[in-house]
Amino acid sequence: MSVNIVKPSILPGFMELIPRDQILFNKMLDTIRANYEKFGFLPIDTPVIEKSEVLLAKGGGETEKQVYRFQKGDTDMALRFDLTVPLARYVAQHYSELSFPFRRYHIGKVYRGERNQRGRFREFYQCDIDIIGNETLDIINDAEIPSVIYSTFKELGFDSFTIKINNRKVLKGFFQSLNIEDSTLILRAIDKLDKIGMEGVEKELNNLNLDSNTINSIKEFITIDGSNEEILERLEGLGIDNEIFEEGLNDLKTVVKYIGLFGVPENNYKIDLTIARGLDYYTGTVYETFLNDYPSIGSICSGGRYDNLATYYTKQRLPGVGISIGLTRLFYQLREANLIKAEEDSLTQALIIPMEGCIDKGVEIVNRLRREGIYSQIYLEKVKMGKKFSYADKLNIPYVVVIGQEEVENNVYTLRNMKTGEQQSLAMEELIKELK
Amino acid sequence: MSVNIVKPSILPGFMELIPRDQILFNKMLDTIRANYEKFGFLPIDTPVIEKSEVLLAKGGGETEKQVYRFQKGDTDMALRFDLTVPLARYVAQHYSELSFPFRRYHIGKVYRGERNQRGRFREFYQCDIDIIGNETLDIINDAEIPSVIYSTFKELGFDSFTIKINNRKVLKGFFQSLNIEDSTLILRAIDKLDKIGMEGVEKELNNLNLDSNTINSIKEFITIDGSNEEILERLEGLGIDNEIFEEGLNDLKTVVKYIGLFGVPENNYKIDLTIARGLDYYTGTVYETFLNDYPSIGSICSGGRYDNLATYYTKQRLPGVGISIGLTRLFYQLREANLIKAEEDSLTQALIIPMEGCIDKGVEIVNRLRREGIYSQIYLEKVKMGKKFSYADKLNIPYVVVIGQEEVENNVYTLRNMKTGEQQSLAMEELIKELK
Repeated sequence: MSVNIVKPSILPGFMELIPRDQILFNKMLDTIRANYEKFGFLPIDTPVIEKSEVLLAKGGGETEKQVYRFQKGDTDMALRFDLTVPLARYVAQHYSELSFPFRRYHIGKVYRGERNQRGRFREFYQCDIDIIGNETLDIINDAEIPSVIYSTFKELGFDSFTIKINNRKVLKGFFQSLNIEDSTLILRAIDKLDKIGMEGVEKELNNLNLDSNTINSIKEFITIDGSNEEILERLEGLGIDNEIFEEGLNDLKTVVKYIGLFGVPENNYKIDLTIARGLDYYTGTVYETFLNDYPSIGSICSGGRYDNLATYYTKQRLPGVGISIGLTRLFYQLREANLIKAEEDSLTQALIIPMEGCIDKGVEIVNRLRREGIYSQIYLEKVKMGKKFSYADKLNIPYVVVIGQEEVENNVYTLRNMKTGEQQSLAMEELIKELK
Repeated sequence: MSVNIVKPSILPGFMELIPRDQILFNKMLDTIRANYEKFGFLPIDTPVIEKSEVLLAKGGGETEKQVYRFQKGDTDMALRFDLTVPLARYVAQHYSELSFPFRRYHIGKVYRGERNQRGRFREFYQCDIDIIGNETLDIINDAEIPSVIYSTFKELGFDSFTIKINNRKVLKGFFQSLNIEDSTLILRAIDKLDKIGMEGVEKELNNLNLDSNTINSIKEFITIDGSNEEILERLEGLGIDNEIFEEGLNDLKTVVKYIGLFGVPENNYKIDLTIARGLDYYTGTVYETFLNDYPSIGSICSGGRYDNLATYYTKQRLPGVGISIGLTRLFYQLREANLIKAEEDSLTQALIIPMEGCIDKGVEIVNRLRREGIYSQIYLEKVKMGKKFSYADKLNIPYVVVIGQEEVENNVYTLRNMKTGEQQSLAMEELIKELK
């Protein structure tokens, strides 16, 4: 039978790893999950496909253009493009079965038909946590979130990172005090400070038809810097008489105080008045996290507080606070920057290599090791010894146990350390001890 | 602002769990994964969306009708409907980067637009392992697979299950000896033996225009029973002079011998000559696994040996053997049969309940517990004490630590066991010890 061969390939914008890298990726996923669970977040897992009318209830914007939407039969369906909309639907739908504050984590793939571009993915993992209150949610929750970020990235092996914190009410109140109601364009300009510098920002502000007093006030405001204490003092010192500003400032003070109490070291978090977060549903605290030595990677974990999660699905008022780690993009960036590399060792601890006629003994031994919880494998193919060793080598399996006639007769086994080449003759119990 | 409310709901045929059930589901996933890793299988993770020409290279059949296929821009894409086609594509694509035998596990969601039916899912988890050889793959690998099944289901908490084993070559050779080349319809009849009994099977065979001698031979063949040894002897005793039959019988003998050596107890595996597996790509050993006390659940883990994995993507000959656990359906069935229930305890060990004015101390304590690796949470909302306790209760958190003024002053904390109601006053170190 002759078969037409289709070139094996995947669509552009999708990440696929070889096992060695996949092991590393999975370890990062596991670390994130373990941290989320340690902080009392509960797992949920929602369908990747949902009704279009549900997923796109909000409608409009870039999102709708990027969504993978299709029909099957009469059903109009779409792939989720984030984990927040499914969360809103989930909480509204299962409201009566949940206990509030509802702390959930969700790790899963989401889909966006983005323009094809290096480092942009059309399928990527999001790792989200959110705390959802019923009617109210205490501000101290906003201080606990950075402690989850801290604990997670610390355990992922990072030391030098900064969780930048701001409060949208502080911004909103400040702009109101300048008689600016719609600050969208201004915030967009400020958001570029890192990239285009103060001069660039000033130029953009000039283009917005603001008078020079206003521009000076904005410049003064966004250059406020110093320790967290100093920034809070200077904000206080502005003497802005605006209710929203005052509320935001009080919230920011509380959050900063409790972040410290929640055990985040002083040099891992910092108020930054230029952080605004593009998404319009944030209403209070906002977070972005940067690697100090690699600012070009951009924010590696962002989020914030919102007044009402599920407006489109319920009349219940559900304020919340949460963050998201986009692991696929982060993994890609970290690899590009040579900040991570695949593990030296495989998951498998030992490869049993039986010589001719010794397979039965080999099977007995691999069994025993597995029963002892030692991840192990037996090489069963009939090939030359060299090829068997090179298999262990290529898979980075750290130990090889060779089983020959002599070993079978004496019940003593040769354990070879594949890194050092060192060999030991060991009885079964010693072998187990050594491999554990 | 008034917003139109969309009823929060998901599409039919999708499983979504509340957190308590999700924890149980995840534990099962974790157990399966840990077992797969213990046996030396490497993780892969492929895109859920692939090119239609790749996913549907084989084409035809039920599958193509059920697949979720759609266009975005000029791209014709589809959601994967199993993990085997992506594996074939993956191995062909990454051939030069892999070491053979390539042992991979893959746990992920797959999609089939099946007819809407109770217990049938359109999105479900498959948990697959396969061992792929380059050109050849030793038959003993076919014996190792049942030991993975055994280890996995044992650790999932099952004792009374049977891995039924057969070999397609034995069937093929047997039918050839009866001068039957296409045995598809016969196998389909035999496959129903459990449901329609021998009489029913006989009726179906009669409808196939077989002569009575042939029917009697088939009946005799499929009623061969006894211990594995006895079945093998009786097969031998049939004196069938057919090369394929002999090859199959030898393979079956080897597999049965080594399954035992791989540590699977005698009463957990059994040759069953009526097992054929519908999928046409199996060419040798086939497996199905049944819960002895709940045969109506059907096979909970199936698979087999195939001659060539990736015919559609490469000229390389890649024989393999593997199995799949359809966890979503299994979970559903086990829950329907009341064989599993949500865990008594949450993942969270302790809820810190601070009384008024004691939040700072509470935060300090929850920090400390988390640093010690104790999964814990602090209740931050300003509500009555009763409500705080009932929160712990609803989430099945086993311990509550109450922090009041007295506790703050004396550094002694009240640990309440939520099941027994028992209370202890403990210093910090004792508290940690107790919770660990």
